[in-house]
Amino acid sequence: MKLKAKFLKWSAGAPTAMINKKTAEKIGIHSKERISIRTYKKYPKEMSLIVDIVEGIVRPGEIALSLEIKKEMKLRKGQLLDVNLSTVPLSTIYIKKKLDGKRLSEKQIKEIIRDIVNNSLSQAELSLFVSSMYIRGMNLKETIALIEAILESGNLLKLRKKLIVDKHSVGGVPGNRTTPIVVAICAAAGLTIPKTSSRSITSAAGTADVIETIARVEFTMEELKKIVQKTNACMVWGGALGMVPADSKILDTEKMLKIDPESQLLASIMSKKLAAGSEYILIDIPYGKNAKVSKKKALELEKKFNKLGKYFKKEIRVVITPGNQPIGKGIGPALELIDIMHILNREKEAPKDLEKKSVFLAGQLLEMTEKAKKGKGEELAKEILQSGKALKKFKQIIKAQEGDLNKIKLAKFKKDILSKKSGKIIEIHNKKITSIARASGCPIDKLAGLRIYNSLGDRVKKGEVLTTIYTESKSRLNSAVNLFHRIKPIRIR
Amino acid sequence: MKLKAKFLKWSAGAPTAMINKKTAEKIGIHSKERISIRTYKKYPKEMSLIVDIVEGIVRPGEIALSLEIKKEMKLRKGQLLDVNLSTVPLSTIYIKKKLDGKRLSEKQIKEIIRDIVNNSLSQAELSLFVSSMYIRGMNLKETIALIEAILESGNLLKLRKKLIVDKHSVGGVPGNRTTPIVVAICAAAGLTIPKTSSRSITSAAGTADVIETIARVEFTMEELKKIVQKTNACMVWGGALGMVPADSKILDTEKMLKIDPESQLLASIMSKKLAAGSEYILIDIPYGKNAKVSKKKALELEKKFNKLGKYFKKEIRVVITPGNQPIGKGIGPALELIDIMHILNREKEAPKDLEKKSVFLAGQLLEMTEKAKKGKGEELAKEILQSGKALKKFKQIIKAQEGDLNKIKLAKFKKDILSKKSGKIIEIHNKKITSIARASGCPIDKLAGLRIYNSLGDRVKKGEVLTTIYTESKSRLNSAVNLFHRIKPIRIR
Repeated sequence: MKLKAKFLKWSAGAPTAMINKKTAEKIGIHSKERISIRTYKKYPKEMSLIVDIVEGIVRPGEIALSLEIKKEMKLRKGQLLDVNLSTVPLSTIYIKKKLDGKRLSEKQIKEIIRDIVNNSLSQAELSLFVSSMYIRGMNLKETIALIEAILESGNLLKLRKKLIVDKHSVGGVPGNRTTPIVVAICAAAGLTIPKTSSRSITSAAGTADVIETIARVEFTMEELKKIVQKTNACMVWGGALGMVPADSKILDTEKMLKIDPESQLLASIMSKKLAAGSEYILIDIPYGKNAKVSKKKALELEKKFNKLGKYFKKEIRVVITPGNQPIGKGIGPALELIDIMHILNREKEAPKDLEKKSVFLAGQLLEMTEKAKKGKGEELAKEILQSGKALKKFKQIIKAQEGDLNKIKLAKFKKDILSKKSGKIIEIHNKKITSIARASGCPIDKLAGLRIYNSLGDRVKKGEVLTTIYTESKSRLNSAVNLFHRIKPIRIR
Repeated sequence: MKLKAKFLKWSAGAPTAMINKKTAEKIGIHSKERISIRTYKKYPKEMSLIVDIVEGIVRPGEIALSLEIKKEMKLRKGQLLDVNLSTVPLSTIYIKKKLDGKRLSEKQIKEIIRDIVNNSLSQAELSLFVSSMYIRGMNLKETIALIEAILESGNLLKLRKKLIVDKHSVGGVPGNRTTPIVVAICAAAGLTIPKTSSRSITSAAGTADVIETIARVEFTMEELKKIVQKTNACMVWGGALGMVPADSKILDTEKMLKIDPESQLLASIMSKKLAAGSEYILIDIPYGKNAKVSKKKALELEKKFNKLGKYFKKEIRVVITPGNQPIGKGIGPALELIDIMHILNREKEAPKDLEKKSVFLAGQLLEMTEKAKKGKGEELAKEILQSGKALKKFKQIIKAQEGDLNKIKLAKFKKDILSKKSGKIIEIHNKKITSIARASGCPIDKLAGLRIYNSLGDRVKKGEVLTTIYTESKSRLNSAVNLFHRIKPIRIR
């Protein structure tokens, strides 16, 4: 049926289509069923969508589409579209199969990924896929198929550069913002490190959220190439590049559900690194109490990464690091950036733990690429940091990303939380700290978050400031402070 | 924050709230987060909702709400509401716990059910709960807690009647519409059978869908009592009564996901029967190839039902019946009703299999309540059917539900599908038949569906009509016929 396109200004995530009840009756479609929309062109674009049926907003003969779809299909207002009933995609059957604990073939996984990219699955169906992966897991063969399917769904970054490296942390440790420092050191040492990061999934901030505080992180492929050509590096949001669109959509659902299936974690990391053309990949797996994984699990993941490295012919090194407490002082995009600037500027406020870990990781990459001899990587990394070369390189990258270091600000509201007794700190609970940071508005409110002034084993006095909470609104300050008192993330004995 | 209520005409399912971007900034809320809305009254009503943030549709200072919420909170246009940021409900943590395979306490299950009823969970979170129940299961203790939580969420039907009975089929067999016949026979025999049914979840039609073809099925509790007082029976949609609102919401999600977790199946059936005050409960479990369950599974379910019956002090009888092929000729709301009328009218077109099974089930209930001696139930049921008393009772119930038997019609479009060869029918695949019925428009298009003219073992000739597909639109006729040819539900050798 021929319908006229109309657009609704949604900032909400999921692509949506709405038609009038009368139109729905003519097409013979029911609410929440699938339609196909197709442009009338020589090379028509086509998409399959879940439809909502409304009475008020859309007139008969019209179809209302979200701005996401407008952009993806390059539509203009009033454009005529061919709208028809669409059949249930086969991938819903494959998702059910995974839910029932069965293995999926390469073909079936590709079909699921294709339907995800084409918006053919409803939010409920995509949630089912994510939870079935979470519970049932995937074996190596399935994981490889998933990586290849995600890669096929997007565009590769082709750089005419040698020694392309990358690093990734599986996360779970608040404040652990080593990436910008590692990127600055490695790029200053002559390595190429085109770092594409995701925004935060379950944490207070991702690297893209942190850099976005002061610079652009969304670029086209062409813009990105220019930045890397000029500076040897970048720190951008992968989602905007269309490198791995399937991954971005799955991550959105994981964000909503706050779960992170292992096979998707492996596929998400590997597909991004492969799409970026990285030859040397360093993976940081923090382990321990309240970290994302136990030491046992970390060793298992290490094995899997090594197998994937072998299959895809990339040099992968996994480092397993302690993750039983936050790293750095700040937690939240801007607060983490402040820590980073203290380190790059070699100021006395620089958090030692964050600096040490960053130098260690950069050292690993320098050794992998033979920029430093075995055992000498950290030394070289430290030298680059202390000489000011890393700071210079960081400023160059931020400038190339149209950023401005003077944009670093503090949040509108803050509240100090004082220790109720004297004693030794015996727990700083990662997940609880993250919950408080998110309640404060992270990662969307860039300036929100908290600052923790101590580490495990430190002695504190009654009345001493334990932590400061920062927010952009009064109501969030109340929520975050209340949550702090309810879940007690810092234990003193 | 004080906002003015506005309503949007959505026919889409999920309750929705939308606010303008500027309002969102003032409250400090992000898209897809939770808000609480509260009326300014002496006894305020409160609700927690997931919010969408828009630019075009809603003005600053307004909140747009779906008609479902308007109804549930009894709001009027322009009413002022207190809207605030709401915290993440604890039940999301419990859902994650179940997903990780852990047991839930009674308190935790009640918390989840309360949040479901209050719309505090997003569609993605509710999907996660359903899939975690599906995969991880629940033990007897959890199932009992689930039943009690669902019961507490709603209203009980209190009838001043004795010998209140009910029957339920776990489903999975297309065309298996015994309920209206069983209800008519039992009510004619003097039993009270206040049958509340769900609409179809994964099948072509539920009893409520079938009766809705010719009568009202949505009543208030008071109206329902009058119907049962007058006729000893009813055949209505449970969802409208608010008896088990939590169950209705979970079923909506199951419908979307097309999965039906066992613990929810047990809880859904038991909570409805308990809310209706039934003392004698007959459960029909069809088993076999392409049925919902295997014989082994059916026996396991029987045990569980018996344990639940003991716990809740109700007489439960489980019958395990063959379910390896459709029963009756028609599949789809109106087409199944036509079969039923043939049986009640004692016409020669009456499908023997459906009649036999209905008489058997009614006989069981007559024996359980000692209306008939052991072994004599079927005989009495048959007598009531053949005497015309069942037909008279059925007409009385339909009349009480403001129905009209003359409303039975056939669909606008139809197509005969002919056998491509001569031979013996060796398979009529339940799930495939259901897929075709749903593609034809069932259960929403009441007149859609298909008619199958044979049973397993029948001999057919090349060119003979195997089945007729009925639809309300041309596009659905094409979809359903194409699907038939693609998935081949009837095999001949």
